[in-house]
Amino acid sequence: MAVNLLPPVAADLREINGIRLATASAGIKKPGRQDVVLIEIAKGSHTAAVYTRNAFCAAPVVLCRQHQEYATPRYLLINSGNANAGTGDKGMQAARQSCQAIAEIADVNAESVLPFSTGVIGQQLPVEKIEAALPAAFSDLQADNWFAAAHAIMTTDTIAKARSVQCQINGQTVTLTGIAKGSGMIRPDMATMLSYIATDAAISQSLLDQLLRQSMDQSFNRITVDGDTSTNDACVLIATGKAGNAEIDSLDSTEVQTFLQALNDLSRFLAQAIVRDGEGATKFISIAVNGGADTAECRQVAYTIAHSPLVKTALFASDPNWGRILAAVGRSGLDNLDLSKIDIALDNVQIVAGGQPAADYTEARGQAVMDQSEITIHVSLGRGAAEDLVWTCDFSYDYVKINAEYRT
Amino acid sequence: MAVNLLPPVAADLREINGIRLATASAGIKKPGRQDVVLIEIAKGSHTAAVYTRNAFCAAPVVLCRQHQEYATPRYLLINSGNANAGTGDKGMQAARQSCQAIAEIADVNAESVLPFSTGVIGQQLPVEKIEAALPAAFSDLQADNWFAAAHAIMTTDTIAKARSVQCQINGQTVTLTGIAKGSGMIRPDMATMLSYIATDAAISQSLLDQLLRQSMDQSFNRITVDGDTSTNDACVLIATGKAGNAEIDSLDSTEVQTFLQALNDLSRFLAQAIVRDGEGATKFISIAVNGGADTAECRQVAYTIAHSPLVKTALFASDPNWGRILAAVGRSGLDNLDLSKIDIALDNVQIVAGGQPAADYTEARGQAVMDQSEITIHVSLGRGAAEDLVWTCDFSYDYVKINAEYRT
Repeated sequence: MAVNLLPPVAADLREINGIRLATASAGIKKPGRQDVVLIEIAKGSHTAAVYTRNAFCAAPVVLCRQHQEYATPRYLLINSGNANAGTGDKGMQAARQSCQAIAEIADVNAESVLPFSTGVIGQQLPVEKIEAALPAAFSDLQADNWFAAAHAIMTTDTIAKARSVQCQINGQTVTLTGIAKGSGMIRPDMATMLSYIATDAAISQSLLDQLLRQSMDQSFNRITVDGDTSTNDACVLIATGKAGNAEIDSLDSTEVQTFLQALNDLSRFLAQAIVRDGEGATKFISIAVNGGADTAECRQVAYTIAHSPLVKTALFASDPNWGRILAAVGRSGLDNLDLSKIDIALDNVQIVAGGQPAADYTEARGQAVMDQSEITIHVSLGRGAAEDLVWTCDFSYDYVKINAEYRT
Repeated sequence: MAVNLLPPVAADLREINGIRLATASAGIKKPGRQDVVLIEIAKGSHTAAVYTRNAFCAAPVVLCRQHQEYATPRYLLINSGNANAGTGDKGMQAARQSCQAIAEIADVNAESVLPFSTGVIGQQLPVEKIEAALPAAFSDLQADNWFAAAHAIMTTDTIAKARSVQCQINGQTVTLTGIAKGSGMIRPDMATMLSYIATDAAISQSLLDQLLRQSMDQSFNRITVDGDTSTNDACVLIATGKAGNAEIDSLDSTEVQTFLQALNDLSRFLAQAIVRDGEGATKFISIAVNGGADTAECRQVAYTIAHSPLVKTALFASDPNWGRILAAVGRSGLDNLDLSKIDIALDNVQIVAGGQPAADYTEARGQAVMDQSEITIHVSLGRGAAEDLVWTCDFSYDYVKINAEYRT
């Protein structure tokens, strides 16, 4: 199903010195499925995290934020199959109980454990089942378990998302390995997605926080499947400092730019992988808007196109019904939009030039682009020098099917 | 397909003294289909109109606005099958040409003709075909043609929308008859919809403008199918003054309140009919939000729920997956939303009370409501006394099918 996305190969995923992982089966949604992941972070590591902007965070997100104020994370406890969201006080209690359970086994404070849940909203978390699975998970912690972890966090994903990249910092090889999950309820500013990226580089806590935010802005905050923001999104970046480089602590250094590029490569791959595996996706669409007064308005136009059910169904049908793109730009809410300055192209096929149908446009040329599995929609607003870019997918029968039958 | 909506009965549609209508076949999209409507308005009538807020209006909308500045409308010329939008200078010329053609036949100024188009965006209007159909249309003008007109303006509609209502003003019977079309590309602040309502009441021009706006706010501006705003929306209200009542010209009179109630009944019926016949709709959904600081934020929350593909697919599946409603409220963009004050109910089944799962909620009770074809989603924000209401439908396989295959 996923658009031009290959499954990860276990041997390609590099271990990160200072990180061990385990998976276990708690039978949360389906008996026998690996649905719990435990990630152990070595002492002395730094960990940064960002969470959903949905006003109604799930219980584990609330608890993550609390715990991070009191302690340095040592364990991440993740379950799929149940989001523990909309579950009230009982849900908070369940999240706390799961942290305490692993804290006792590992002999750390409960605040050193960050909990994450993904799956159905509004059902109570079967915390006893998770607790029962934790001793086996703890004794199974290994450095080479990234592949298994990438699979265990999946929900409606059809394919696991994982990759490793490396870069050189002061002659030292630094490794980054990341996994992500997410397929529906995906929209800007975090999606129904979880992502865990670890590196052995030594990076100060405050710089790590900055790098995570910058990298998110270039990756996970540019994707949308259906415009729905989850209650549970989280992205975690861990730096164990085991690579042996001198700790980097300033955004200005050349080393950090090298690292940031590697981090962006990885996070962009994972973010795009989520769109490529978007629920029911048959096409991967980039929407590039330029000529805006600022990047915010470019992104606003891009997301209006990306969320339009009419544009998305036309993309699914490979129908060059570009009037729907024009109509979406027109309703995007920008003041004083001037139609006579609008250009629209599909890849390199000009469709609208100066608000008029392009002279050399033919339905056959539009059709040729639409038949591709990857398409870039270019929109020029003609009112400034800013530009921005988002990624999305089309809207198919299978999106409806997957979301209509999700709980059955 | 349409949800609890019966087709109109020709005999139930009352003539409006001062209005004559005709339909004709220009073969714009399909040979032989009645796709042109001509409406003649008697001299001395008043006509009010509102148009799409999409920044990129179609050529006929631009021309309507221009013409209304110079002349009192005498003819409305409507075609379905082609929207004449995104068609540049050539499209403007085509719209002008069609107005001139009927102006010559009827011996009026071209500015007395208002043109309306609905259908595919981005294809040039075959104006010669329309011109060829006009002489027959003109000679066929009749007062009892509302039923045929309601059918000829349809595009993806599965059922015609038309109704007549009557009220008493100072002992005088006043009649209103209206028709509407629209099924997809439907969202707040006008939709891909056209509506024409006429009355024989005598109402001053400035009051008629006010009444149309007030009535729109209670009807067409509360509906959404897919969040996409068309380039061509228009709603026209005509008062011929033939009923014999003394012209009413103030909002304060009791007569006008009687008339406004009748107008609201009619426009709300037509607006709801568009949602009931929404592309692929299987359920009619009311979303009532109360406890807001102002009506604007209530409507913002209501539309966020109404546009959520996840909520809409759950409604299609009759799945009481209410977590998706909660998540939509949470991402609606309101500052300082307090989860602990949120109540959610499906009809009279409480689901969330004070941000917690309601004590007496059971999946069976939620399922019973979800199995209905008409459902009201109630959300209380607990931060004020304002409330608002919008209407929408669910999101089915057929929505994708209809919009993927629209041009084939």
